[in-house]
Amino acid sequence: MIKVGIVGGTGYTGVELLRLLALHPQVELRSITSRADAGEPVSQMFPSLRGHVDLCFVHPDEALLDQCDVVFFATPNGIAMHQARGLLDAGVKVIDLAADFRIQDVAEWEKWYGMSHACPDLVAEAVYGLPEVNREQIRQARLVANPGCYPTAVQLGFIPLLEEGLVDISGLIADAKSGVSGAGRKAEVGILFAESSDNFKAYGVAGHRHLPEIRQGLARVAQHEVGLTFVPHLTPMIRGIHATLYGRLKRDVDLQALFEQRYANEPFVDVMPAGSQPETRSVRGSNRCRIAVYRPQQGDTAVVLSVIDNLVKGAAGQAVQNMNIMFGLPESTALSIVPLLP
Amino acid sequence: MIKVGIVGGTGYTGVELLRLLALHPQVELRSITSRADAGEPVSQMFPSLRGHVDLCFVHPDEALLDQCDVVFFATPNGIAMHQARGLLDAGVKVIDLAADFRIQDVAEWEKWYGMSHACPDLVAEAVYGLPEVNREQIRQARLVANPGCYPTAVQLGFIPLLEEGLVDISGLIADAKSGVSGAGRKAEVGILFAESSDNFKAYGVAGHRHLPEIRQGLARVAQHEVGLTFVPHLTPMIRGIHATLYGRLKRDVDLQALFEQRYANEPFVDVMPAGSQPETRSVRGSNRCRIAVYRPQQGDTAVVLSVIDNLVKGAAGQAVQNMNIMFGLPESTALSIVPLLP
Amino acid sequence: MIKVGIVGGTGYTGVELLRLLALHPQVELRSITSRADAGEPVSQMFPSLRGHVDLCFVHPDEALLDQCDVVFFATPNGIAMHQARGLLDAGVKVIDLAADFRIQDVAEWEKWYGMSHACPDLVAEAVYGLPEVNREQIRQARLVANPGCYPTAVQLGFIPLLEEGLVDISGLIADAKSGVSGAGRKAEVGILFAESSDNFKAYGVAGHRHLPEIRQGLARVAQHEVGLTFVPHLTPMIRGIHATLYGRLKRDVDLQALFEQRYANEPFVDVMPAGSQPETRSVRGSNRCRIAVYRPQQGDTAVVLSVIDNLVKGAAGQAVQNMNIMFGLPESTALSIVPLLP
Amino acid sequence: MIKVGIVGGTGYTGVELLRLLALHPQVELRSITSRADAGEPVSQMFPSLRGHVDLCFVHPDEALLDQCDVVFFATPNGIAMHQARGLLDAGVKVIDLAADFRIQDVAEWEKWYGMSHACPDLVAEAVYGLPEVNREQIRQARLVANPGCYPTAVQLGFIPLLEEGLVDISGLIADAKSGVSGAGRKAEVGILFAESSDNFKAYGVAGHRHLPEIRQGLARVAQHEVGLTFVPHLTPMIRGIHATLYGRLKRDVDLQALFEQRYANEPFVDVMPAGSQPETRSVRGSNRCRIAVYRPQQGDTAVVLSVIDNLVKGAAGQAVQNMNIMFGLPESTALSIVPLLP
Repeated sequence: MIKVGIVGGTGYTGVELLRLLALHPQVELRSITSRADAGEPVSQMFPSLRGHVDLCFVHPDEALLDQCDVVFFATPNGIAMHQARGLLDAGVKVIDLAADFRIQDVAEWEKWYGMSHACPDLVAEAVYGLPEVNREQIRQARLVANPGCYPTAVQLGFIPLLEEGLVDISGLIADAKSGVSGAGRKAEVGILFAESSDNFKAYGVAGHRHLPEIRQGLARVAQHEVGLTFVPHLTPMIRGIHATLYGRLKRDVDLQALFEQRYANEPFVDVMPAGSQPETRSVRGSNRCRIAVYRPQQGDTAVVLSVIDNLVKGAAGQAVQNMNIMFGLPESTALSIVPLLP
Repeated sequence: MIKVGIVGGTGYTGVELLRLLALHPQVELRSITSRADAGEPVSQMFPSLRGHVDLCFVHPDEALLDQCDVVFFATPNGIAMHQARGLLDAGVKVIDLAADFRIQDVAEWEKWYGMSHACPDLVAEAVYGLPEVNREQIRQARLVANPGCYPTAVQLGFIPLLEEGLVDISGLIADAKSGVSGAGRKAEVGILFAESSDNFKAYGVAGHRHLPEIRQGLARVAQHEVGLTFVPHLTPMIRGIHATLYGRLKRDVDLQALFEQRYANEPFVDVMPAGSQPETRSVRGSNRCRIAVYRPQQGDTAVVLSVIDNLVKGAAGQAVQNMNIMFGLPESTALSIVPLLP
Repeated sequence: MIKVGIVGGTGYTGVELLRLLALHPQVELRSITSRADAGEPVSQMFPSLRGHVDLCFVHPDEALLDQCDVVFFATPNGIAMHQARGLLDAGVKVIDLAADFRIQDVAEWEKWYGMSHACPDLVAEAVYGLPEVNREQIRQARLVANPGCYPTAVQLGFIPLLEEGLVDISGLIADAKSGVSGAGRKAEVGILFAESSDNFKAYGVAGHRHLPEIRQGLARVAQHEVGLTFVPHLTPMIRGIHATLYGRLKRDVDLQALFEQRYANEPFVDVMPAGSQPETRSVRGSNRCRIAVYRPQQGDTAVVLSVIDNLVKGAAGQAVQNMNIMFGLPESTALSIVPLLP
Repeated sequence: MIKVGIVGGTGYTGVELLRLLALHPQVELRSITSRADAGEPVSQMFPSLRGHVDLCFVHPDEALLDQCDVVFFATPNGIAMHQARGLLDAGVKVIDLAADFRIQDVAEWEKWYGMSHACPDLVAEAVYGLPEVNREQIRQARLVANPGCYPTAVQLGFIPLLEEGLVDISGLIADAKSGVSGAGRKAEVGILFAESSDNFKAYGVAGHRHLPEIRQGLARVAQHEVGLTFVPHLTPMIRGIHATLYGRLKRDVDLQALFEQRYANEPFVDVMPAGSQPETRSVRGSNRCRIAVYRPQQGDTAVVLSVIDNLVKGAAGQAVQNMNIMFGLPESTALSIVPLLP
């Protein structure tokens, strides 16, 4: 059994990790930390876990995390970078669901996240946990930077086009829409029900923290800097991201075949039949990304539709997928979930 | 492996059965019928099932249902009663998720459902599939009448009070609220998003078909006719029923202890700690019923709050629970699902 | 022109007052206070008001409220009681949308609201602003206690039954459902979109602050103490209250005629035809209360369905209605709004 | 008083016309037709209109439409073209809210709408009712083709850029998101609450009927054919369209000033301050279009955000605006509505 610790279990990625790990046959949940709620049963905060998780939140100082085999950080940005070295030194693998280790250019990271990085050398070591790109490195990794939700949906949609050099990479457009859980479980007026229900808006148009992460990922694939306009939107649903991606084609190609071949062996990427329009609910609660690709009116613009559940493939599910890879388990262990529809 | 057939797989209870049965380790899905959609892959209608269910819908005449071990009817009312006898005669067990076999008083059934019953004798044989009341009869049954969604939530909430004769049964009140999926997957204006979102209303106040079913169930427990006012409401959520139940107490008693003891051994009824207010989302996608009981201001009125997922414990999940019982499997097989929250 | 000031304009009742008053032909908006947001244009916080309201929030100390003809308090409980006397002494009429002056029994108020009352004598003077009961007193009032949202919906539904002594007042039940805006514009986790969407729950079952207010109002009408069980619920919609009311009838009567006669001359109470089921959206954005009355199965239980928009008839609209009465204007001035449907 | 008739009053644009016209001081509603619901009081179908509209639906044959001053067609496509000539001949002005007269290229229209056009000559006469472009022609028009909802939002956002020749018109992108009411009040499974709530999807990616309309409008402004990729999406809200528009800039310019100047005198177009992100709810129920313009990271891509209420500025409100213009009334008559927020 893999002994698992979770740092920061009171947010949405935390409870989602618990949902998935509670039924993982190879996992023993050892401790879940919360500074503010130490002593409270986890299932009191999240009654959905009653009967599945018996642990109480513990103070970080008493969590004995260094006795775990792997520790997930489901914390705000800037926490994992202070604790990762100690855990790694103790032989514990680390999967950070926040952004601390996602950006290889530390100066760029510091600019977007507004703080100094505590361990730039670990950034260099960290493996970006997108299995569809980095599976082998993840297998060897001690430290995995779990991708952001938007970056997962956008990269999986653009990768086949960029790998083949099919589109003009100076003018990529990613118009992305997220459910409100993407904003986290924070007491903020803007994400109140009465503010965000029956409403639609863009946000972060001038610049969103996921922009450098996406640019980095796309540049790696394209082996060249990319010009990307990224506009995220808030849509009145709980879970789900829908990325609508646009690129101008440089030559003719069978896009459907290209996408199907690229992801033929990927357990969690489903290229839908031509003409499909993937719905976010078709992946609700599951680790799948569903993709459709179009070339409207046979023009020179490719349109890719990519949907994920932001809390699963966009966070906790991908983290468990990474854990499975790191520990040599079948990649789908505990992730064979049928999406909840309706 | 239990060979399973489903009649009428295109509605919400159908797709929910598929979600649950697709991961049932003892089940082999053999056929799913749909007159209108024969030939279409099930996963084309419900993309959430892509990768989990490979079957196509088949015409009822070609479904070879009599070679199944059990057949679920996820059909409108009035279908199962025409096909049940043939299947039973062929040695197939039948679980009807519609109302055909729920009401023992056939004349009463015919009044509320507006048709003649095709097989009154089978009504007499049918076992009402509420395991918390009828587990032993279900174990022996060939034909199970799976309870309605409202009746499940209301009966589980009232049962402890009625078994002990604690409340005035002449004036019971069940104020129930359902998500819109309870109305089915039917093209009707009243349940359009633009009609039922951001809106709340009662319906069926003058008389709802679940009223006689609830009255029958409560009368069995109370061993006496009951006076029940049942007001269902439509609430803008997809899944979930919240029943708020009122009864006037005839004597003092520790309600919390009573409820906890009554359901101590029930795998799918969770009596929450005193002071809890169960949320429908705390059972979303799971087969659990969560209950809390109150005596506000220490007055003589007991208030019971009972929540279920109408498509799971209120339909498909309870049907699988019944199947597990009928086939001697552990009752929770394929039903150990952590609710999806948020 | 009536010179109007608003204290506490940053909550939902504040912005709703602005929506209504901006188009009131007899009103001149003079000042809107906010301690935290002084200096910010109102329309920056609420872009819906761009082009309609040009004021900036001002600090309370600079609001010159004593030069207004009327001041609305759209503040948390416990604010108006500290400022009302000064304004009244300056000849300003006061309408408090919070609870400071609603409960005549000051000890009871202090128990439920957890603070000492600053001016018990003004409580005695204050008129409870439910025009359907107190229109003449409101006309003469200097200080109006605007009713709570639940109390408005519940009282308007019960009044015809209680005035005629038709029901057993020892066991009244009010099962009420509110949209999430009823919880206010406060940064709290429980009312986040991702927490309260696609979810339904009861709250305050053990005791809600609107209980004593409702009991007081019903007792006045019944001229006797009443036994009331009040269970509020949170439903995933922005606006609207639906109260489902139950009372056991003591004698036979034509309920439909009774209700129609009681409210025949009321501009904002609409008794719907027999058999109707009022929807909250049918009053969305308007000051109307719509009511239907039933006697299911011709039993001895009367069921009343009463819907309002909690921010209009349940708050700001009723406040404007009261202002119109207090200043001798036609009662519907600025309130002839067609509800927004869909 | 302007005598008004409405053909097809049972859909969302019909009830919205009624909401607006019921309070129009210069309008006398004469008749509202519905073949299926003739004889039924309008307020029975739409209780929101109780107390505001006393008419019953009448059969088209008995509507005496030729005695009206203006007739609105709130009908499916293909109806108005059969009745317009008769009305025009009788001296009645016609405003068609459907698509019959929007596309000047009749062959193109017939291709997208799948029917033969009944009166191509009237297409030539019809004025496209976008006041911000065609105000003077509307003033003289007998027959106005009221723009579609997406075309309104997209054109108003692109116009300032195209008029100045600022962007590469070969690669325009319009990523648009609509509330579900845009699909109409039709009994279809895909727009049921349980299908479209908590869900997001694109649709019509391969080709949507509003594409040729938008292309025509943009080409007129640009005085050249445009290359446009238009991807509409369905978002789980009732009302509202959010268009996110992308164009590659050909030269540097002060976009904010450009937009502000272009719309400085438009009563219903609000260019928001730099850095704003317009929300659909900020125009809910009102005839306004709010726009913000960006140049992210000072790159060469302009991003325009444009929001409208699809049923108001995108349909009924714009129709009333056109009527006001056609009859020489102040353009804002009956349209000075404060949006409903929250």
